[in-house]
Amino acid sequence: MSGQDRPRPVVLGQNQYGKAETRVVRVTRDGEVHRLKDLSVSVALSGDMDAVHLSGSNAHVLPTDTMKNTVFAFAKEHGIASAEQFGVRLARHFTDSQEAIHRARIGIEQYDWERLTDAEGSGLPHSFVRKGQETRTARVEYDGGRCEVVSGLKDLVVMNTTDSEFWGFARDRYTTLAETRDRVLATEVNARWRHAWSTDEDPLPDWEASYGAVRAALLEAFAGTHSLSLQQTLYAMGARVLETRDEIEEIRLSLPNKHHFLADLEAFGLENANEVYFAADRPYGLIEATVLREGGSPRIPTEPTQG
Amino acid sequence: MSGQDRPRPVVLGQNQYGKAETRVVRVTRDGEVHRLKDLSVSVALSGDMDAVHLSGSNAHVLPTDTMKNTVFAFAKEHGIASAEQFGVRLARHFTDSQEAIHRARIGIEQYDWERLTDAEGSGLPHSFVRKGQETRTARVEYDGGRCEVVSGLKDLVVMNTTDSEFWGFARDRYTTLAETRDRVLATEVNARWRHAWSTDEDPLPDWEASYGAVRAALLEAFAGTHSLSLQQTLYAMGARVLETRDEIEEIRLSLPNKHHFLADLEAFGLENANEVYFAADRPYGLIEATVLREGGSPRIPTEPTQG
Amino acid sequence: MSGQDRPRPVVLGQNQYGKAETRVVRVTRDGEVHRLKDLSVSVALSGDMDAVHLSGSNAHVLPTDTMKNTVFAFAKEHGIASAEQFGVRLARHFTDSQEAIHRARIGIEQYDWERLTDAEGSGLPHSFVRKGQETRTARVEYDGGRCEVVSGLKDLVVMNTTDSEFWGFARDRYTTLAETRDRVLATEVNARWRHAWSTDEDPLPDWEASYGAVRAALLEAFAGTHSLSLQQTLYAMGARVLETRDEIEEIRLSLPNKHHFLADLEAFGLENANEVYFAADRPYGLIEATVLREGGSPRIPTEPTQG
Amino acid sequence: MSGQDRPRPVVLGQNQYGKAETRVVRVTRDGEVHRLKDLSVSVALSGDMDAVHLSGSNAHVLPTDTMKNTVFAFAKEHGIASAEQFGVRLARHFTDSQEAIHRARIGIEQYDWERLTDAEGSGLPHSFVRKGQETRTARVEYDGGRCEVVSGLKDLVVMNTTDSEFWGFARDRYTTLAETRDRVLATEVNARWRHAWSTDEDPLPDWEASYGAVRAALLEAFAGTHSLSLQQTLYAMGARVLETRDEIEEIRLSLPNKHHFLADLEAFGLENANEVYFAADRPYGLIEATVLREGGSPRIPTEPTQG
Repeated sequence: MSGQDRPRPVVLGQNQYGKAETRVVRVTRDGEVHRLKDLSVSVALSGDMDAVHLSGSNAHVLPTDTMKNTVFAFAKEHGIASAEQFGVRLARHFTDSQEAIHRARIGIEQYDWERLTDAEGSGLPHSFVRKGQETRTARVEYDGGRCEVVSGLKDLVVMNTTDSEFWGFARDRYTTLAETRDRVLATEVNARWRHAWSTDEDPLPDWEASYGAVRAALLEAFAGTHSLSLQQTLYAMGARVLETRDEIEEIRLSLPNKHHFLADLEAFGLENANEVYFAADRPYGLIEATVLREGGSPRIPTEPTQG
Repeated sequence: MSGQDRPRPVVLGQNQYGKAETRVVRVTRDGEVHRLKDLSVSVALSGDMDAVHLSGSNAHVLPTDTMKNTVFAFAKEHGIASAEQFGVRLARHFTDSQEAIHRARIGIEQYDWERLTDAEGSGLPHSFVRKGQETRTARVEYDGGRCEVVSGLKDLVVMNTTDSEFWGFARDRYTTLAETRDRVLATEVNARWRHAWSTDEDPLPDWEASYGAVRAALLEAFAGTHSLSLQQTLYAMGARVLETRDEIEEIRLSLPNKHHFLADLEAFGLENANEVYFAADRPYGLIEATVLREGGSPRIPTEPTQG
Repeated sequence: MSGQDRPRPVVLGQNQYGKAETRVVRVTRDGEVHRLKDLSVSVALSGDMDAVHLSGSNAHVLPTDTMKNTVFAFAKEHGIASAEQFGVRLARHFTDSQEAIHRARIGIEQYDWERLTDAEGSGLPHSFVRKGQETRTARVEYDGGRCEVVSGLKDLVVMNTTDSEFWGFARDRYTTLAETRDRVLATEVNARWRHAWSTDEDPLPDWEASYGAVRAALLEAFAGTHSLSLQQTLYAMGARVLETRDEIEEIRLSLPNKHHFLADLEAFGLENANEVYFAADRPYGLIEATVLREGGSPRIPTEPTQG
Repeated sequence: MSGQDRPRPVVLGQNQYGKAETRVVRVTRDGEVHRLKDLSVSVALSGDMDAVHLSGSNAHVLPTDTMKNTVFAFAKEHGIASAEQFGVRLARHFTDSQEAIHRARIGIEQYDWERLTDAEGSGLPHSFVRKGQETRTARVEYDGGRCEVVSGLKDLVVMNTTDSEFWGFARDRYTTLAETRDRVLATEVNARWRHAWSTDEDPLPDWEASYGAVRAALLEAFAGTHSLSLQQTLYAMGARVLETRDEIEEIRLSLPNKHHFLADLEAFGLENANEVYFAADRPYGLIEATVLREGGSPRIPTEPTQG
């Protein structure tokens, strides 16, 4: 930009604000028997917010402290049947009740618990252990008209100890990798899937049943695919979800290739017949793709998760 | 979706793959005096990748291991003058040398070191301490034509212990927050700014000088703004960058409001005249906005960083 | 210390060195059916190490790189029947084979995996999902004579949603806490227990069965104790282990009190009948104690885990 | 243990309880000019606590909530001149005011901030940026008689890009490491040092000046030592502190060897003359030792920090 040009004036672009990571635990008491939901809820609102940025006037700004209060109050008033339903309720509330707010996005992490059992294996009424395997996620966006609900999971670590190959790849001057017909394939599944449901005119999904079925489809496709590349496995996982679950329109998968390198034992006179591996942290491969229905519009963001 | 409809066929959408977090340290030896660059480099490539997803054919797949090798080899062959320049070189290399690759995105974190000094304060030739304050970031995208370079920083924690107010906000049934005319304002600056430079026909920025100037502008605007809301401070920070740095087209700021609550000491007969605060972790406010030049197209992603 | 005193000479005290966090995965192939062990192994050796500290002579220093190699080689040569047994083997090897080494300490983290199943619930032969609940730990010390084996677990999060009280506590000027007869009690179990076994003359424990039994005893005592304080629950957990498992001599428990505060909904006209909680991160209570057999010597370190 | 032996009765061993990680920020206002201290304070008390473990009686249990309140109240009443002095005051308070408490341990992390400056480099009165380099630590123990004060730091990452060698080491069957006469030496300094001061009859140290001098001594010794092993460098660092600071009796250092491996560029026809390194995460060497004055008793715990 040459010195004689006047810089163009500066303007405000996309913006949002909210309260992140409100940790709410809701206990439902059915006599002696308790159930619980454990969520981290993040609210982000956007709308008519020029004044607060340009002059500091807060007249349109519902405090983020109020959003936190609303999470707790709604947990009491309406319960938490599922993260998705709770998110829909919150998103509609903020957008429909505040004139200045035109769009709400609710992001939720859900931590599942399972009932502890007695020595005979019967479930105890009010004692729980955190499952700790995957973290469930849900994201709801509402613009005053339709809702968009994206369910997901992360941190689910899986491994096939065989039935994975990698060969026939492109090569250049910097390629030294050996081909392999039998390797460990391990990844940490990060998945987000968008539901067809968008208004109360659509039949309401059974959010909990849908989650369980998607999770099962992902694991079955991972285990059942003889893999020539992690991309192939990824696509098989995404396609399996869409082919078996009519209520899902689109899925985005982000799969780090958690490399397990064969330990080199030759110097010690030992053969390593795919038995001993070094589990590496960094660097790692990262494979990401969207799978969707033909003719559909991809709506799940594709930003790489590694920064 | 009724049972009699056939589900639409499933197709592959946006996809990318690469090697994430290759940790490269480049030492430059000028006689006794050494300099160093310390980076974490993530490569994500996309292009003609249907086959690998659909059939597992890797003919178009340059291994991610090769990307890692290339990072190390380029550090040797070309040095690392700056994260931005190194990213441009890598992005062009992958896109221009692999026919199947149509777009490359290079994401970099940079960890700065400062020279240790002797007792008299003179810099030592080859001893360093990691600065540890902010982490610098750079992201380069190249599609075979133009480059897009976004520099940034994260983890830079700042605090004003006065000159911050919050009052006159919207209220609803769930609002209990008290107004304040004097509060602590603390945040962890996460900023990404896009450079005007996009091809070699533009004059090349001095990436290092530009970074220092943007960082200084952010801090000066944070400290110098008497704040009626964190949104106002955010906008002042973004506008200051664009108003003082012609080479920047757009900036995105994500500012968590790191709440410092006044400790309630009344029960102990003590007055707390804005002296003792509880530094809370969660939940936290999160304020995010883009500031850009009038008429410009926002290109930095606006995804909320809290999930 | 006055200036005229000569400072006493400086000497080397306790020291140890080793390789930390070697990540080894061992696959055992029984035809189609695979099993796996996934460990992070840390080795710390001590002995006749004055020279390397005082003059830099490495004649007594087996490289830490060699320790890493040994972990991989032993995984091949001897397999990994259990973390404890693998640790005993490593500890004896370093102490018995290196004259300068007088003591070895092997610290292990173990990440458990469970078999994925097909649609009918049958286990698949070589597909696994990481359990992700607790992390198992083992620590072996060997001084050339006897072994000391401490098994453990961490990160196991449990909650009772009732049957917990806290009242009748001491008070001082700074006490404002209300008494409660019904609260949530949640903690993240960190436990380490020492085995009686110390030489091959003792009958060898079944390390895997012992682990499962101790874990079950901890959970049963947590769930089954009507709690007047977390200390009482802790003691019940430790005592249950020692009372039911003859092979254990001592147990150390470190239990953070993961506070779940009742959300205050009064301002909104809502009653919170122990239904809606805020799950707080920091600060947290921390309760730590050793339980051991009468007359026994406590040998598990008692350092607080919070720094 | 044979079945006919009666297991010995179970007893309570060492125990302590407290509130961990209370985050207190203390602002001192000197007119326009503010100063601040930012601490995380953990309290652990022990004493006559059998009843609460065995029967759940809380009569001797000052609530951990009260400890949190006390931290905030003392920050107001007494200010925070230094972490050490604040810790001494808290430790004495709990032990001297509660008959059941016989010993208090206060663990503190301190996060330092530096003043932001204007364009001319003058310090601003109430704007700060978190330093972010090392975290300072302090630990005070008081048993009703004497105090023990251990200051420290962690997370301070340093690197020498030359003047480090490693050769002449012990070898066994599993040794494959090549000798080197020129390597990068990098570590993350974790240090704790115990002060001679223990009662008010001793002259009070200037805690802040002492910290700065110890930190400088550590860095000077690290940079100034031509290293034949990290153990040699560690000892030089510890000895430098004791030789230059009369007020220190003992120091414990834990130094991870942050390996920087030469990238292998031979396959690409490139020579790597100690210019390009791969910065590895795991596994890492870990070197730990105490340095103390002759005849002194080591009192800083020697537990390995890797588990």
